[in-house]
Amino acid sequence: MSKIIGQTAVSVYPLSNYSFGSKEIKHEKDINMDQRMARLRQSYEKLGLRRTVEGVLVVQEHNHPHILLLQRGVAFFKLPGGRLRPGEDEVSGLKRKLTNALAPANPQLRISWDVGECVGTQWRPNFDNVFYPYLPPHITKPKEYKRMYMIPLPDKAVFAVPGNMKLVAVPLFELYDNPGRFGPSLASLPAMLSRFRLNVV
Amino acid sequence: MSKIIGQTAVSVYPLSNYSFGSKEIKHEKDINMDQRMARLRQSYEKLGLRRTVEGVLVVQEHNHPHILLLQRGVAFFKLPGGRLRPGEDEVSGLKRKLTNALAPANPQLRISWDVGECVGTQWRPNFDNVFYPYLPPHITKPKEYKRMYMIPLPDKAVFAVPGNMKLVAVPLFELYDNPGRFGPSLASLPAMLSRFRLNVV
Ligand SMILES: [Zn+2]
Ligand SMILES: [Zn+2]
Ligand SMILES: [Zn+2]
Ligand SMILES: [Zn+2]
Repeated sequence: MSKIIGQTAVSVYPLSNYSFGSKEIKHEKDINMDQRMARLRQSYEKLGLRRTVEGVLVVQEHNHPHILLLQRGVAFFKLPGGRLRPGEDEVSGLKRKLTNALAPANPQLRISWDVGECVGTQWRPNFDNVFYPYLPPHITKPKEYKRMYMIPLPDKAVFAVPGNMKLVAVPLFELYDNPGRFGPSLASLPAMLSRFRLNVV
Repeated sequence: MSKIIGQTAVSVYPLSNYSFGSKEIKHEKDINMDQRMARLRQSYEKLGLRRTVEGVLVVQEHNHPHILLLQRGVAFFKLPGGRLRPGEDEVSGLKRKLTNALAPANPQLRISWDVGECVGTQWRPNFDNVFYPYLPPHITKPKEYKRMYMIPLPDKAVFAVPGNMKLVAVPLFELYDNPGRFGPSLASLPAMLSRFRLNVV
């Protein structure tokens, strides 16, 4: 069979290959959405377009791919990642953010992150919480973009997440079926990942 | 700026660079969904998994990407493409299907198709009309897969579509906003394309 360009292969290991601990709580910067938007507006005025990077970590159970999501409370799910510093490049910024979110405090257990291919991009045109997978027409000053990258995992690893969060493995079919629960961006991850060859190992 | 892997650049030209004509009607093989499913079942028993390929052709208007879709009647939209022959490889099969669907009969106006990267894959687990961007758990005998490829266009071209169809340019924001009208697969195209750098020219 000839090689299909864009259909990059990624090895996907069982969830049971990984162990999960917790580490010190990282306090949220904002207590509500108003405060969050005020902070976004302030930082936009000072620094311009906010650049956010996120990692897509895939594991498998019963041969079906699952995505690792950080869960806070019952209803809030996100990919690990966060805002880049001014001038910071996307790949090193994402490695820094993944270490903050997922690596154990013990330096001997640190994960050497591999940042793979771009999975997709989302744009925030206004100072609100709505993102689109494109820049809407006539928007010349978007407020933020969020770029997702595939993070190929080693066959085994130890993760540690801040004590106020959980790391959960959500199957693709659950993301796809529940845009209301996970939001449109996470619900479209199965479509964005459908070009990859996810080799369950 | 460093190169982002997976963020492949594609030049996107104005819709007005292309001209659109019509050619001989290609009659539908089935008159209704029951007949269509009966034919899928028959061909599955004879040939196994059906393999379908489709092309994503992108143009722009007011600097916003639009996707070229074939429209039949008021409510049916599809990407150009179709079923591969037994043993046919995806790239040459897709070129054959694009020529059938879009090329003028005049051989001098034939388009020399360039098949780009895989955009995504959809799976049909059962003998019905439901596709998923993954193989659902415990499905060992899917009935069809449909693989979408980016088709980088030349800066100018003449298209001709069968007389019972129209070729329409649908903006990404309209696909994204209307899963009811376009179906979940076309509505998720903006997310699947969000990793590309669509350079409007
Ligand atoms: Zn599971
Ligand atoms: Zn199972
Ligand atoms: Zn338009
Ligand atoms: Zn306009």
